[in-house]
Amino acid sequence: MLYDLTVVQFSKMLNNLSAILDKAAVAAEAKKYDVSVLLNARLAPDQFNLIRQVQIACDTAKIGVARLVGVVDSAPKHADTETTLDELKTRITETLNYINSFKAEDFAEAADRHISQPRWEGKYLTGLEFAIQHAIPNIYFHVTTAYAILRHNGVDVGKKDYLGAMPYKV
Amino acid sequence: MLYDLTVVQFSKMLNNLSAILDKAAVAAEAKKYDVSVLLNARLAPDQFNLIRQVQIACDTAKIGVARLVGVVDSAPKHADTETTLDELKTRITETLNYINSFKAEDFAEAADRHISQPRWEGKYLTGLEFAIQHAIPNIYFHVTTAYAILRHNGVDVGKKDYLGAMPYKV
Repeated sequence: MLYDLTVVQFSKMLNNLSAILDKAAVAAEAKKYDVSVLLNARLAPDQFNLIRQVQIACDTAKIGVARLVGVVDSAPKHADTETTLDELKTRITETLNYINSFKAEDFAEAADRHISQPRWEGKYLTGLEFAIQHAIPNIYFHVTTAYAILRHNGVDVGKKDYLGAMPYKV
Repeated sequence: MLYDLTVVQFSKMLNNLSAILDKAAVAAEAKKYDVSVLLNARLAPDQFNLIRQVQIACDTAKIGVARLVGVVDSAPKHADTETTLDELKTRITETLNYINSFKAEDFAEAADRHISQPRWEGKYLTGLEFAIQHAIPNIYFHVTTAYAILRHNGVDVGKKDYLGAMPYKV
């Protein structure tokens, strides 16, 4: 299930994020302002701007999956130098390509794996704890904050853009 | 795992939400304004205010768990009439009491259960799909939006307030 919760669902959310960035471009074009105004917008002076929210959403997916699978050094490096919407969309695409290179069986030992980060000073979480309490809440936080920045600035986004399509059955 | 993803983690997030509401009260007190200004704040004219974000976060937890367990009619009713911070915190407490009345074994058949809502016009999702693609993204959306409304209005909240404590091990 960790595969579905991360690779599959993170991919869906990153695609949704890419689509709301397209809506940002449409809004900027319609009102004749530079989309970089939106990319640099933030909800508070000391909160990250939209560019950084997208970068962190991508990193949460990339590094979260890499850690769960136990191959953290295999994640592609990104220098956090994106300044344009096209560059952000490329970052999302590269992240999607990376996380989708894994299969469900790569997560066989993920739940019990010891996950750590330099700033945790040697302490660890189990993979299950890391996924449920850290990676998953974090990616939703940054995608929602990106959405909120656009919503606050009048871009025509709604909850369905955030959630994406549901696999309804009859 | 659906129990951990919903009852346990939703409880953590609702407690975190209750704690950031306390921070809202502190901010209002410090700057001598009525906390109802924050409760009625929103990020866009056509987006829900903080009160409604809290109500929906609670309902997502309450109804999501009830649907997964297969006892949707057992969820406590709420009339959405809260106007004060104390009333919102009571709503959160009642929601916590309800979802914590379930145990892991109540979720034995949750993943395969057919979940529907009136507005889905007879269509359904499996419990697993409903949890991963609907309930979980929704609760994080509303907690993050509540957080963003407070952050935007200068309340001293940070990522740690959103995530809560991690069960680090040595």
